[in-house]
Amino acid sequence: MHKIKKKRFTVSPPLLIAGSFLFLIVVGTLCLKLPFATTTPISWTDALFVATSATTVTGLSVFDPGTTLTIFGQLVLLFLIQCGGIGLMTFAVALLIVLGKKIGLQHRVYLQESFNQNSVGGIVNLVKLILTFVLTVEAIAIVIMTLHWLPRFGFTDALYLSVFHVVSAFNNAGFSLFPDNLIGFSADPIVNIVLSALFILGGLGFTVVIDIYQKKTFRQWSLHTKMMIIGTIMINVIAALTIFLLEYGNPATLGNMPLYEKIMASYFQGVSPRTAGFNTLNIGVMEDPTLLFTMLLMFIGGGSASTASGIKLTTFIVVILATIAFLRQRGEPDLFGRSIRIDTVIRSLAITTISLLLVIAFIFMLTVTEKIPFLPLAFEVVSAFGTVGLSMGITNQLSDLGEVLLSMVMFVGRIGPLTLFFLLMKPKKIHYRYPYDQIFTG
Amino acid sequence: MHKIKKKRFTVSPPLLIAGSFLFLIVVGTLCLKLPFATTTPISWTDALFVATSATTVTGLSVFDPGTTLTIFGQLVLLFLIQCGGIGLMTFAVALLIVLGKKIGLQHRVYLQESFNQNSVGGIVNLVKLILTFVLTVEAIAIVIMTLHWLPRFGFTDALYLSVFHVVSAFNNAGFSLFPDNLIGFSADPIVNIVLSALFILGGLGFTVVIDIYQKKTFRQWSLHTKMMIIGTIMINVIAALTIFLLEYGNPATLGNMPLYEKIMASYFQGVSPRTAGFNTLNIGVMEDPTLLFTMLLMFIGGGSASTASGIKLTTFIVVILATIAFLRQRGEPDLFGRSIRIDTVIRSLAITTISLLLVIAFIFMLTVTEKIPFLPLAFEVVSAFGTVGLSMGITNQLSDLGEVLLSMVMFVGRIGPLTLFFLLMKPKKIHYRYPYDQIFTG
Ligand SMILES: [K+]
Ligand SMILES: [K+]
Repeated sequence: MHKIKKKRFTVSPPLLIAGSFLFLIVVGTLCLKLPFATTTPISWTDALFVATSATTVTGLSVFDPGTTLTIFGQLVLLFLIQCGGIGLMTFAVALLIVLGKKIGLQHRVYLQESFNQNSVGGIVNLVKLILTFVLTVEAIAIVIMTLHWLPRFGFTDALYLSVFHVVSAFNNAGFSLFPDNLIGFSADPIVNIVLSALFILGGLGFTVVIDIYQKKTFRQWSLHTKMMIIGTIMINVIAALTIFLLEYGNPATLGNMPLYEKIMASYFQGVSPRTAGFNTLNIGVMEDPTLLFTMLLMFIGGGSASTASGIKLTTFIVVILATIAFLRQRGEPDLFGRSIRIDTVIRSLAITTISLLLVIAFIFMLTVTEKIPFLPLAFEVVSAFGTVGLSMGITNQLSDLGEVLLSMVMFVGRIGPLTLFFLLMKPKKIHYRYPYDQIFTG
Repeated sequence: MHKIKKKRFTVSPPLLIAGSFLFLIVVGTLCLKLPFATTTPISWTDALFVATSATTVTGLSVFDPGTTLTIFGQLVLLFLIQCGGIGLMTFAVALLIVLGKKIGLQHRVYLQESFNQNSVGGIVNLVKLILTFVLTVEAIAIVIMTLHWLPRFGFTDALYLSVFHVVSAFNNAGFSLFPDNLIGFSADPIVNIVLSALFILGGLGFTVVIDIYQKKTFRQWSLHTKMMIIGTIMINVIAALTIFLLEYGNPATLGNMPLYEKIMASYFQGVSPRTAGFNTLNIGVMEDPTLLFTMLLMFIGGGSASTASGIKLTTFIVVILATIAFLRQRGEPDLFGRSIRIDTVIRSLAITTISLLLVIAFIFMLTVTEKIPFLPLAFEVVSAFGTVGLSMGITNQLSDLGEVLLSMVMFVGRIGPLTLFFLLMKPKKIHYRYPYDQIFTG
């Protein structure tokens, strides 16, 4: 009897993650389908698609949220984004702290899984730290944006727009209340700097932020933190430069802009694809090489245990380092004087392989169900997998089946393909080993 | 002094492989540029492209070989195909055997690299065996095809067409003297069966053929042989079925054919992309999912040390097995009661990663240099990388720069990305370890 009872209450972390997201998506779908959530009636598929898009902080939408959703609908969207972004469980734990209840071991194990944090004891403090951090950063950003938008929109609208876009940016959701996303603000430095700072910060991952907060010098940082910071700077510089060069002469994007706007738009469109999903340039009229490059960025994504998805920047770096180490016929790859364990290498390669096969499989299925050219369709799938939300403009042309398929991609992209497979394959043991300098991949 | 002398004569196997192919390509380019090689003058770029395509047994062509090349030009093409296909070095060794000279250790090390054969002593016998095998198979096929084509073309033409297509098929070159490749023979069972048998046999790899020849029962076969035989059967059945289902209703391909022709064409177009490159269906009008699926097959390719390229079927299988083993949280993957070494897994993953990055990089470059839609361009690059030769019909629209870039892809695809990188990175040691049940990947 005792054994059965014990089993009954054992929920595996992957199941808890997937279950939480599914629950949020169902609640979101129901709320968006309420008559007073939209200005015109929407179908169940559309409600499911947008609820999934918000919960998974993707930002793809089959309608314009600014005009189709009522204020209530927009608040539902914002709630889903905030929950899906900084993590549903952080909320639950926060609630438990507020209610003064003790946190059970079960929940702490979940949080450990969620944030790659090794000491079970520090979890509660960790959650407090995260919430303080999130709310402080968002509050500061809301103040700045409200002041900036005050002359143009008046106080109420400026505040509302600021809240929406700050939450959307920090959680890497990429939803905007402006019909053309942020194209109208491509020349606005405050919008560019504040929103990109928010989504880059949100996309680094909480472990990185905590590590930097706790340890003051570069030398003290963990390998993971060093990799994320140096990697983020490098990939963003490369991305901005590439887009600047490729789109320089394109009259539909950078071509007719003054130089400073060219630079700013290149920067923004270079840092956004690794999962923010805002755009200040029209994606649909970009050059083919820019689109391919953007797809690569979307596939890579941001940091582990962050508001970003994709295979994760560290996973990508480990794969590259492992390949170089193999070519040099050395064993384990190393970086900054630390070796990377072969387990981490295999894990990274497995994540990349599964992700690639998933993306190809869904592109394949969508080429069967949709009558849309290949490149926009492939772009849409990669965007959904990385929960990015950039689109070449075909989202509202999708069939019902196409919407359901893309919802599945967003869901898998957000919980991570490993979580999905660990759910399906029921592993015997879960990794808690390697206390020092572990690289979090996926 | 002694040390210097020793160094002077040490040519690394990767350099020898790459050098041999480059030499053949240069000779081929010069020969095709001769005034009596073509019926109308061709540019240097075109000569380079087609010489590379023939030497790397790809089959892409910027002109119709049947009408633009004279008999001399066609024989040059055939010579390049036979040399590039069964391996330039086999020829050199054969010549040495004929001349009665002893084979130096240097050459034997090269052959070891080329054929994944572990015992240095058995190399000479191996080469004799290969040549006997190749010539016997080709002779039998030529007799069958000549008899089959006799009523239609007369003896001389039937013999000539048979020699050309048999050599092209066995070496997985995919070049045809018919302007529409083999579309005219989609209902001809003899052409379908004989040519596909040739290129499947050629694409298995000589180690597999020798293993089957020497060991009579399935149990005795090496893991590599088992993997290749079972893998080839499985992937071919899946490919044929997939193409049958996807193209069933397409009036431009299978749609208007009687059922038996539908089945035969699906079979042929399913087995051809893993590097033969012949086509009995018009590739340019296929459905998008079929094209994507074909790209996957082209990327995977055939067997190691064969006339096929791509990442190789075993590499693909090892990557899949390793990923499944990781998800099940087991260490090394296993198959047929044998474990696969972690070194083999890392090697397979490195090959796949490098190949994927190479393909993406070249698609990227071609989207910059060409004004051709994305899918046909991506298809062309994957086809060149797998030295397949299937095309959506854009080969003759390529710019000069595009032709040079694709020539580079074919070259790298044929020598293998690992050979290229070992050339560039000067490794300290080369693997000769693992005598038992090694999986050859790449
Ligand atoms: K997003
Ligand atoms: K070929």
